[in-house]
Amino acid sequence: MRHLLTTQGLPREAAIAILDVAEDMAAVSEREVKKLPTLRGKTVINLFFEDSTRTRISFEAAAKRLSADVINFAAKGSSVSKGENLKDTAQTLAAMGADAVVVRHWASGAPKTLADSGWIDAGIVNAGDGTHEHPTQALLDAFTIRRRLHGSAARGRDLEGVSVTIVGDIVHSRVARSNVWLLTTLGATVSLVAPATLLPVNLSGWPVAVGYDLDHAITQRPDVVMMLRVQSERMAAAFFPNAREYSKQWGLNDERMRALPASSIVMHPGPMNRGLEISAAAADSPQSTVLEQVANGVSVRMSVLYHLLSGAVER
Amino acid sequence: MRHLLTTQGLPREAAIAILDVAEDMAAVSEREVKKLPTLRGKTVINLFFEDSTRTRISFEAAAKRLSADVINFAAKGSSVSKGENLKDTAQTLAAMGADAVVVRHWASGAPKTLADSGWIDAGIVNAGDGTHEHPTQALLDAFTIRRRLHGSAARGRDLEGVSVTIVGDIVHSRVARSNVWLLTTLGATVSLVAPATLLPVNLSGWPVAVGYDLDHAITQRPDVVMMLRVQSERMAAAFFPNAREYSKQWGLNDERMRALPASSIVMHPGPMNRGLEISAAAADSPQSTVLEQVANGVSVRMSVLYHLLSGAVER
Amino acid sequence: MRHLLTTQGLPREAAIAILDVAEDMAAVSEREVKKLPTLRGKTVINLFFEDSTRTRISFEAAAKRLSADVINFAAKGSSVSKGENLKDTAQTLAAMGADAVVVRHWASGAPKTLADSGWIDAGIVNAGDGTHEHPTQALLDAFTIRRRLHGSAARGRDLEGVSVTIVGDIVHSRVARSNVWLLTTLGATVSLVAPATLLPVNLSGWPVAVGYDLDHAITQRPDVVMMLRVQSERMAAAFFPNAREYSKQWGLNDERMRALPASSIVMHPGPMNRGLEISAAAADSPQSTVLEQVANGVSVRMSVLYHLLSGAVER
Repeated sequence: MRHLLTTQGLPREAAIAILDVAEDMAAVSEREVKKLPTLRGKTVINLFFEDSTRTRISFEAAAKRLSADVINFAAKGSSVSKGENLKDTAQTLAAMGADAVVVRHWASGAPKTLADSGWIDAGIVNAGDGTHEHPTQALLDAFTIRRRLHGSAARGRDLEGVSVTIVGDIVHSRVARSNVWLLTTLGATVSLVAPATLLPVNLSGWPVAVGYDLDHAITQRPDVVMMLRVQSERMAAAFFPNAREYSKQWGLNDERMRALPASSIVMHPGPMNRGLEISAAAADSPQSTVLEQVANGVSVRMSVLYHLLSGAVER
Repeated sequence: MRHLLTTQGLPREAAIAILDVAEDMAAVSEREVKKLPTLRGKTVINLFFEDSTRTRISFEAAAKRLSADVINFAAKGSSVSKGENLKDTAQTLAAMGADAVVVRHWASGAPKTLADSGWIDAGIVNAGDGTHEHPTQALLDAFTIRRRLHGSAARGRDLEGVSVTIVGDIVHSRVARSNVWLLTTLGATVSLVAPATLLPVNLSGWPVAVGYDLDHAITQRPDVVMMLRVQSERMAAAFFPNAREYSKQWGLNDERMRALPASSIVMHPGPMNRGLEISAAAADSPQSTVLEQVANGVSVRMSVLYHLLSGAVER
Repeated sequence: MRHLLTTQGLPREAAIAILDVAEDMAAVSEREVKKLPTLRGKTVINLFFEDSTRTRISFEAAAKRLSADVINFAAKGSSVSKGENLKDTAQTLAAMGADAVVVRHWASGAPKTLADSGWIDAGIVNAGDGTHEHPTQALLDAFTIRRRLHGSAARGRDLEGVSVTIVGDIVHSRVARSNVWLLTTLGATVSLVAPATLLPVNLSGWPVAVGYDLDHAITQRPDVVMMLRVQSERMAAAFFPNAREYSKQWGLNDERMRALPASSIVMHPGPMNRGLEISAAAADSPQSTVLEQVANGVSVRMSVLYHLLSGAVER
């Protein structure tokens, strides 16, 4: 695998290979000395055009656990702000010997532009681009679901027969997009539940069912309910007039939590707006995988960096 | 020792154990290769809600000298600013595999909240919280005093019989608080000298004498004079009307420096306001330990991280 | 060599020694595991009073490739902004065990002040000071020229007989200054070509020819054309009224590129203003060394850190 840009089109076998190596990496993370020499002498650059401390730290921890050198490059205050374009930035990082570049960008498609350009030899990992994709988040979500369902027998398996309901601010969510593609590739059935104003206008080609009623969705006993963060910072007031109303209709509150089967799991990519899209009790319940998702994020990113930098798996 | 949150209540034996291991760490810092493999595979996160480059760098150098991986997390520009609460931040860092979290916070008590919450398994080191405590600063101050007094025979000793006068902006100083508790635990006699407006209103329970006259205090021939930084950024104008007047009454100027016994030492936690609370000549005199304090800070923090992450000393 | 502050006065032999070790370092950078244990246990601090992500990353990559620990210190948000002076900052870094301090400062002469002061034992590397010097940039430029001209037979050679034309915003350029001294020391002939308003008023003592006509300069068939970044952020409007006019008279456009001999090389320190001082075609042509300069920057900085921290070459 040269790059990880999207989960759309990622073959089932490649996805499973990433999840399987992530199982090995999770085992490393549980050891006393959480470190492998695998990527010694490799340089990973975190190139962040948007702030995201959580994602940056997760990749930084993953790379360091594999003994890579990590250099953080926040585009603010850099020559980017002196007018340097993406091409020159990319070529500069390549010339400095970057082996992988983890890119977070406000523009949808920026990581693909980098990868397709030939400006840079390094492996490109999309760490979130605009409202487009966030593939490592989807991989860690799939990993988390697989582990919850199959425990130590997870290796090699897909998500055939699993039903996943994704709820909330779909239109602004790269997490939702990446999950739709990956989870369906792995055999899961995906439904979206959201207010009409927070759904993309055009869903043709999306392999999903769409609903508008969360209570009804819960009666369908989904294996997974994935709550999305309300990204009010991306919304015009017209789209999001009232937090109380939102919470009442679209939030996973305590009542809905009780209606959910005890075997269903509750996911959230974080950071959560407690009391808005998810209640504190739901977030902290044993059915919640929120913290497992964070922990699994490091393992999955170790696996992705391993695949990109060792070249072991061809896509 | 699980956490280091405060020096109040830190047992004498635990404090001496930290100082003794810091002596070993100081020896490492004097070697050609200033590095131990002790904390290889451990992750230390510097979680700073307030800027403090000096303290952050000191902990970073300490952790790296012990071969730990260090990740810096400045809360500004992070999901904290998107409304994430301390609980979610803490749980996220825990899930990412943090073994120790070094916390600087503007709110007194935040590190204790973290440690008591059960949100996080990692060892918590208080790197300064509000106007409450800064325990590693007090430990490095105690270490510095002990070394100056006892040289190579310092190991195992306390500060019995040592007199320390702390001067200046007591009310805003977490350094002063941490030193009062630690130095008295170690057997020293502590006096505070300050203008009434810069003393806490309620000093009941503080094991200290209080004075208002620096010249008089100097005639008492204290073994240690510890000058505090005037934190004018924390003061209303009413409390601090006039730098010249302050310097004249409460500054360690050249005249007072001459009045001080040649065997007394002059301390300052830095950064200094030269010409305000301390004259340049006092700061740079052979009696000044300002730079030893900085160097000892790395050794003491190595010792603290070692105690937290190796679990060798029970508190 | 104790420090690297300037190329003015750097002996020819010392410069060649740096370039020769940089050849060895370049070979390391081409290996599968781009890492040497040479500076294990050494601490390099990047002390940046001005933003410069490119230069900081290049030094960071260089130090890490030599296994040094790297600590980044951006002076903004540090105690520097609380009024700490350069002396206290320097002494603090020294006390923390810095072996080398890489300094970028807005004030010309700040690195020399540090080095001469005795405040700090660490080796000081000037990473750009005001409009004064940027010696590692000149060294990487010399390295790039030597490699292009002599290939694998470069080792041990100087630049005798090489003609270099430096074009553009000379007055604001520390790169130009450092190159003038270093390239002439190495035997090259240097010409400056610029509008009168962008030349220093007093060029007495500069071992250069001066011209005002870029087309004429190109007819002289220089071996090297070094384009400088127009630093419009440093200019009053009066000095730089019109980008189109500048580009037409002083830019390396496609027409001038065609007029240049095919054996001439085109250099730029980056970041480039494409379309202003250099056309996209010129920047990306096979004659351009822009990316080699970046790659060589890491090798040259590895060599400089090696010289400073191993003490192998006396200046």
